[in-house]
Amino acid sequence: MTADSLPLLGADGRIVEGILTSLNSDGTINIAPMGPLVDETFSTLVLRPFHTATTFENLARTKSGVFHVTDDVELFARAAVGDATSARFRSDEPLVLAEACRWYAFEIESIDDSQERTRMVARTQNRGTQREFLGFNRAKHAVIEAAILATRLQLLPAAEILADFARLRILVDKTGGAAEHRAFDFLRRHVEQSLAKMACAESRKT
Amino acid sequence: MTADSLPLLGADGRIVEGILTSLNSDGTINIAPMGPLVDETFSTLVLRPFHTATTFENLARTKSGVFHVTDDVELFARAAVGDATSARFRSDEPLVLAEACRWYAFEIESIDDSQERTRMVARTQNRGTQREFLGFNRAKHAVIEAAILATRLQLLPAAEILADFARLRILVDKTGGAAEHRAFDFLRRHVEQSLAKMACAESRKT
Repeated sequence: MTADSLPLLGADGRIVEGILTSLNSDGTINIAPMGPLVDETFSTLVLRPFHTATTFENLARTKSGVFHVTDDVELFARAAVGDATSARFRSDEPLVLAEACRWYAFEIESIDDSQERTRMVARTQNRGTQREFLGFNRAKHAVIEAAILATRLQLLPAAEILADFARLRILVDKTGGAAEHRAFDFLRRHVEQSLAKMACAESRKT
Repeated sequence: MTADSLPLLGADGRIVEGILTSLNSDGTINIAPMGPLVDETFSTLVLRPFHTATTFENLARTKSGVFHVTDDVELFARAAVGDATSARFRSDEPLVLAEACRWYAFEIESIDDSQERTRMVARTQNRGTQREFLGFNRAKHAVIEAAILATRLQLLPAAEILADFARLRILVDKTGGAAEHRAFDFLRRHVEQSLAKMACAESRKT
């Protein structure tokens, strides 16, 4: 595959937020949020995991994984903070999440790990559709934004994170179902606790 | 149907942003954005059109319409500003948008028009799936938010609207494809022109 044939951001390519599963070296499964660059066919995925991420380590070692499109925001919330242990898998496809909307099993074709944020080109080898994606729901998207914020606590000012959570909460209240409320509250608690711990550690340094 | 059997916001119900088609009295088709309250089955839709909206007038007269779930944000952008005339329809189902992901043809069961924002309970009579909904894309959601802003120019301060557009533009640039850029730029131009006209009209009054 040449570089020309990869999806191009801003043209035929866009970032789709989903869930990536990969095999840990101890035989367990890692579940992580991932936003690959894809075109509408999902036949090629350009992944950008950080060098230090378990996903990067697993994909570099096993050269394979499964990307899932799903509207299950509770799974996103839990995966974002490394707490998605209750997810169920298919019996016939051990890396496929049983309740995802669609799945794309891929093999890694090339790896560029010269930068902190690596670049992996993956090709879809097998795929399946399990159920429909709900559609546009502003509360679900608010949870996705909250989950992204929860992974950036070290990078953004605490006041900005909390202001964004307050803004996103309005969308959850106005448009969400019970699942969106649970997912958002889970993330808010996690973020408040983590920020308090960070502030506490910081105050001890001075 | 009793009130108990309706979807409940914050519980089994959530607001899904989609596109509603209804028959105008001159035989043409009205295409409007709509965010009904639905549960996961989409068997009942609670619609809240404004009393003054063409959608309300058409649904009250014909007692039927079609709600569409779609990830086509260019259609949302054009429908939000009343400029969706290029949309294509199915030959076998005249109110069904040919390129929507899913459609739900409904009949109106009850109308409460005692408030400015009415409340119509609709029951799905027929439905179809035409293609898959892409999934979570932050740029597509940014366009949905921009389209909602574009319908609220009279209600929100201009500075707030423009600041929100600047914030949303970042998501389009970071995660969008060509369609998201086109839709966002279309809405931005529309909003800038409308705000300029409103400011001009306002200045003539004083």
